[in-house]
Amino acid sequence: MITVQQAAQLARQASWDLASLPEEIRNDVLNRMADTLEQNREKIFEANRLDMEKGREEQLAGPLLARLLMDEKKLAGVVKGLRDLMRLQDPLGKTLLSRELTDGLDLYRITCPIGVLGIVFESRPDALVQIASLALKSGNAVLLKGGREALGTNEVLFSVIDEAARSAGVPEGWAHLLRTREDVTDMLSQEGLIDLLIPRGSNAFVRYIMEHTHIPVMGHADGLCHVYVDESADLAKAVKVTVDAKTQAYAVCNAVETLLVHEKIAPAFLPALKAELDQKNVELRGDDGVRGIIACETATEEDWQTEYLDAILSVKLVSSLDEAIGHINRYGSHHTDAILTENMENARRFVSRVDSAGTYVNCSTRFADGYRYGFGAEVGIATGKLHARGPVGLEGLCTYKYVLIGRGQTVAETMSDSFSYTHRNTDTPCPLA
Amino acid sequence: MITVQQAAQLARQASWDLASLPEEIRNDVLNRMADTLEQNREKIFEANRLDMEKGREEQLAGPLLARLLMDEKKLAGVVKGLRDLMRLQDPLGKTLLSRELTDGLDLYRITCPIGVLGIVFESRPDALVQIASLALKSGNAVLLKGGREALGTNEVLFSVIDEAARSAGVPEGWAHLLRTREDVTDMLSQEGLIDLLIPRGSNAFVRYIMEHTHIPVMGHADGLCHVYVDESADLAKAVKVTVDAKTQAYAVCNAVETLLVHEKIAPAFLPALKAELDQKNVELRGDDGVRGIIACETATEEDWQTEYLDAILSVKLVSSLDEAIGHINRYGSHHTDAILTENMENARRFVSRVDSAGTYVNCSTRFADGYRYGFGAEVGIATGKLHARGPVGLEGLCTYKYVLIGRGQTVAETMSDSFSYTHRNTDTPCPLA
Repeated sequence: MITVQQAAQLARQASWDLASLPEEIRNDVLNRMADTLEQNREKIFEANRLDMEKGREEQLAGPLLARLLMDEKKLAGVVKGLRDLMRLQDPLGKTLLSRELTDGLDLYRITCPIGVLGIVFESRPDALVQIASLALKSGNAVLLKGGREALGTNEVLFSVIDEAARSAGVPEGWAHLLRTREDVTDMLSQEGLIDLLIPRGSNAFVRYIMEHTHIPVMGHADGLCHVYVDESADLAKAVKVTVDAKTQAYAVCNAVETLLVHEKIAPAFLPALKAELDQKNVELRGDDGVRGIIACETATEEDWQTEYLDAILSVKLVSSLDEAIGHINRYGSHHTDAILTENMENARRFVSRVDSAGTYVNCSTRFADGYRYGFGAEVGIATGKLHARGPVGLEGLCTYKYVLIGRGQTVAETMSDSFSYTHRNTDTPCPLA
Repeated sequence: MITVQQAAQLARQASWDLASLPEEIRNDVLNRMADTLEQNREKIFEANRLDMEKGREEQLAGPLLARLLMDEKKLAGVVKGLRDLMRLQDPLGKTLLSRELTDGLDLYRITCPIGVLGIVFESRPDALVQIASLALKSGNAVLLKGGREALGTNEVLFSVIDEAARSAGVPEGWAHLLRTREDVTDMLSQEGLIDLLIPRGSNAFVRYIMEHTHIPVMGHADGLCHVYVDESADLAKAVKVTVDAKTQAYAVCNAVETLLVHEKIAPAFLPALKAELDQKNVELRGDDGVRGIIACETATEEDWQTEYLDAILSVKLVSSLDEAIGHINRYGSHHTDAILTENMENARRFVSRVDSAGTYVNCSTRFADGYRYGFGAEVGIATGKLHARGPVGLEGLCTYKYVLIGRGQTVAETMSDSFSYTHRNTDTPCPLA
């Protein structure tokens, strides 16, 4: 067994090859992965049966067991995901900018892989294939660490896709499966070898990673999303969207946790909303203003800071749009926040001033998702502000470089008073991409 | 005097206003800054005279004194820079993606400010105005810390441009001048209030910042650039470009520090190069292969890792393109590296495999510069791989957000088997941008 540092070194080596691996080969690998996963179905199910047995012995909660399961249906989903990814446009070698600097000296900005990724994910074996295939399609090498409970299944899945990749000419080191918590710790110190860490998991875990590494981290620590019901909201729409944002799923990062209601619409809106939410057994926690209109628990300062991930909604009256925006920017997690309004100037102010990856108008926060955005699979939802925000798919796993192609030009030649740059943008794709 | 934390809090508050400040106002501010700087010229020169006097007493080196000087010519440059920046296209509110998810539910990706920047720069008073104005144009609040030697000049410049900004309706807190080294230390812990740090200065300083903060840092710690002379290079071009990349300026991050030469062209190329570089008193340090062809000092392992910033060039023979690429990826700083070749397949391999912000073909590394790229002013050159790479101008100071505009759509409605997303890209700019 090689060390994490050795794996990272191999990944770094492999990353140069991956950066120039033609699209046809990368897609061929995805195709082979799909085929060999189908061929090895029994081996995969058998490994998963053992993981599931152990999980039951360890009395894992129902939802965790459901995630851990790899059955016919999930494998079919994984295989379909690979074939869909194959058909997605190549994210590499796209010319983002094309500019003549001076006669015969042309600047291009082209997309390229980031290099080496380190991704930690939950006990969901389908995630292993999804993440490894996203990395491969985007030309990145990857160190993978899945949840402990899924290790048996992950080892089989990994050996199957690794074989498929290697048989198509992908270099050793393109992906490596980490096994232990100590491996993750070791990974955090591989600066210079790993370019980006993407931790998925609990808030506490993501924060731990951010605080213990100098490698850039992309991830979201919280999903504390808001819905603001503006004075001018359409009542029926507002009830419908709020109910969806809270109840369509609970344990998800894009569910609403705090509802802000303009005091002028509250007397009409809150009773209508409560009638709907009572039917779904959602607990409401309101401030004094809210409790003056409907009966509910009392919300405290802590409620505004809490991502319930449960059938609980905190509710606060506000006297203005700006108070709502202020609350969201103070307590929110910069994930996704929605305004329900028929006043487009208010919508515009909300959109420009709310500092979140997603600012929504008259629709449910639950739409914040790579699949729903049409990005194909996603590696996560970023709540940082740099590089990529919101759902991160292939594009977020790429960066760019500048290519400058000349005929022997020097800067010395440009220092005369008579020289000036043309800086003429063109539509020419980079001839070396 | 307020604390750094208070300044960061004010900046955070101001950032919501700045994000929605119309382009006309932001440009009006730049115009007013230009005017008031001209009106206050004598006050500025007087403050600078005192800084210069002190600098001479402290026996600052000549180049440092030259940077510290703020005279008629430099002020004219600063004023011209402001008027040029005014005319640059607004980087905010650009629609990067426009996609119908389903009937009446439209997704937009629009550019927006990052929020609050913390920028530390060298003792160059013109940089203060340049950086503050780039921040303002891109809708960001900014904490500024200039070099100690320029503090007197910076205080006058800052009060002049702050007054201009405030008179145009820019909120308090849009910019704040830090005074001491302790202020910088305090700034490093303002996570949540500051979104991005951009340190400019020595390698040691940039590394120190990176290691002592959890705020994202954009900057370059090194500029260890390479030129590779391929087997098929044109000899005259190769000599000309190499001489320019080494000697057009020495103490700059985009000058070449290590030259890699294919062994087949070395016997013809090296003597021709040496003849030119000898005239400019450039010291050559070669490996054994090089010393078999020309007389020069011996290069050691340390030379491959050294950014001389001086009239010294290390030279190494390589037996293949891939050896050159391997050397660059191992020892380089991912800044800018060039290949000189007449073989376009070799150029393509170099461009795709060299992991640098700039990969150049047949031109000098000295072109790596925001002004030369036509970006207007730059805040620095990024050698990290995320967010922005290479010269960073207005665009690199922006991020994006997703705006989703609907008519009350819920995710629950999309869960039926008959539903499918349209995911139809359109050219419509975001109506709320």
